[in-house]
Amino acid sequence: MTSVLKNEIIIDGLEYCNWNRDIFEDIWKSGITAVHATLVYWENTQESFEKIEEWNKLFKIHKDIICHAKTSEDILNAKKNNKVAIIFGFQNSAPIANDIYLIEKFFTKGLRFMQLTYNNQTPLAGGCFEPKDSGVSRFGKEVIEEMNRLGMIVDLSHAGKNSCLDAIDFSNKPVAISHANPTFFHESLRNIENEVLKKLIKKNGFIGLSLYPYHLKNIGNCKIEDFCNMIKELINLIGSDNIGIGSDLCLNWSDEVVMWMRNGKWTKKIDYGESKDKNAGWPKQPDWYQKPSDIKNLFRAMCKNEISEKIAIKIIGKNWLHFMKNHF
Amino acid sequence: MTSVLKNEIIIDGLEYCNWNRDIFEDIWKSGITAVHATLVYWENTQESFEKIEEWNKLFKIHKDIICHAKTSEDILNAKKNNKVAIIFGFQNSAPIANDIYLIEKFFTKGLRFMQLTYNNQTPLAGGCFEPKDSGVSRFGKEVIEEMNRLGMIVDLSHAGKNSCLDAIDFSNKPVAISHANPTFFHESLRNIENEVLKKLIKKNGFIGLSLYPYHLKNIGNCKIEDFCNMIKELINLIGSDNIGIGSDLCLNWSDEVVMWMRNGKWTKKIDYGESKDKNAGWPKQPDWYQKPSDIKNLFRAMCKNEISEKIAIKIIGKNWLHFMKNHF
Repeated sequence: MTSVLKNEIIIDGLEYCNWNRDIFEDIWKSGITAVHATLVYWENTQESFEKIEEWNKLFKIHKDIICHAKTSEDILNAKKNNKVAIIFGFQNSAPIANDIYLIEKFFTKGLRFMQLTYNNQTPLAGGCFEPKDSGVSRFGKEVIEEMNRLGMIVDLSHAGKNSCLDAIDFSNKPVAISHANPTFFHESLRNIENEVLKKLIKKNGFIGLSLYPYHLKNIGNCKIEDFCNMIKELINLIGSDNIGIGSDLCLNWSDEVVMWMRNGKWTKKIDYGESKDKNAGWPKQPDWYQKPSDIKNLFRAMCKNEISEKIAIKIIGKNWLHFMKNHF
Repeated sequence: MTSVLKNEIIIDGLEYCNWNRDIFEDIWKSGITAVHATLVYWENTQESFEKIEEWNKLFKIHKDIICHAKTSEDILNAKKNNKVAIIFGFQNSAPIANDIYLIEKFFTKGLRFMQLTYNNQTPLAGGCFEPKDSGVSRFGKEVIEEMNRLGMIVDLSHAGKNSCLDAIDFSNKPVAISHANPTFFHESLRNIENEVLKKLIKKNGFIGLSLYPYHLKNIGNCKIEDFCNMIKELINLIGSDNIGIGSDLCLNWSDEVVMWMRNGKWTKKIDYGESKDKNAGWPKQPDWYQKPSDIKNLFRAMCKNEISEKIAIKIIGKNWLHFMKNHF
């Protein structure tokens, strides 16, 4: 680990991996303090509770190097105890179906992030791939209130623009976009317009910058310098306190999984998401961000590209921790 | 039974009852041929399959007077065999969650009507009580195609205006609004604007007229003559072939049930639906439409109010049968 980072908090604000000892060890050795891990996309209530049980088994098996974080204090303790803290998140609201009471049940089991939508419309809000975005619905408003009450972070990644604007309005706690980039960097349905970023920041909201190729300028050929320049431009726009990394790394999955993420069971046809060449596989990651520990490459590149070490340290973890402290 | 109706098909295009022998006998004695019965509103997949199993038990217990209709032929056979045909419908898409493959599974079990939404937004479309109606979503479009393929009727009762217009557009088979009235008769979020009615009829769609008090001019004090005048005006607008009755009678339920219909589990607060005086109970039915057999009152009143007997016969059932033949 870059020695300057030894005592710093490093947080990856989103990963979706087919977890095993090798991945945990890689993250642990790299000195990453905490990972917001996606548990589900399209899974229903029961399947989502089962995912939590699977994680509880992982926590037992790998208790020497990982632990479950339900509070920001847990993250600090993980750092102290030399373990990687795992924070649970859902990338969709499918698990709660139409039942507001399920939010507290999942919260009790450790859920700390939930997206209102995943690309498509849900009973709560509109998705970023929908032709028309309803904004936040009646149920969505109630859900946000309940998440605020409990201390669960409203995550607007994969939401439509109107839904983002509504949710920022309705939420009485700052909301997050855990993994996306500004559209000024790369035009994409998943990326975020300046109008939304400005409103987000007015309410002290947060953005985790994504390394998923379809969110990057020049896709998998994106240069690290371009990514750093984007960060600088973003700092000019919204300041340096509310920016983190949400790598969106998806490791150790077969190609079927990316197609399942896109299609769930909602269509009998094939939806290729934002892959313009109808690529049915995982897109190629930039060579400088292949694995969780490559967050250190990014740290070094930021420092080389006129971002101060102090700010780079904030961006790779300190900011996320500060933001999470507001909630749990 | 009014003797002139002895050989006619009488169909109630929507009822939601807490079914028992008394209700079945009342319907059977009155000579009603078929009832589209609501099985669920907010129930999830498993609960909805269980409702079907409960019905299968009812079919066994009361096999002398009721039967399950999966085809329009079954309805004609029920008439021949002096039984009441029950047609299954869902008033929401909650049972299919995000899974298009569930539609065929429910179809196989006999489901023949499904609403895209029930007041609130769903993953398929916008509800009539939402501040903003998305129209039909990506998933909604796929669902309509699948329902068309199978021969399941797309029911737009409780959908928002944009969703109605989109669904009429997208569906390659005529769609139904099984229980609602025109807004020219009574302004209500649940009733239907002329623009939608005109578009509906261009694609050979159908409307079942509702007797639920909040859909009526003067609510529970609505006069039967006013209702008949509305029918005449509607015939002027869309002709007499695509109009039926969907009484929306809800019998033998406690007051908690109407509040559950309004609130499901989507809010911790109280939503009173369209009850302006925040009535937490069932609204009072007009005295001329208290029970299923009162469809005969309406028949007589239509004939007295310058609607020809021939057209009145079509409206109380023949039209519904003709419409259903297009689907199953």
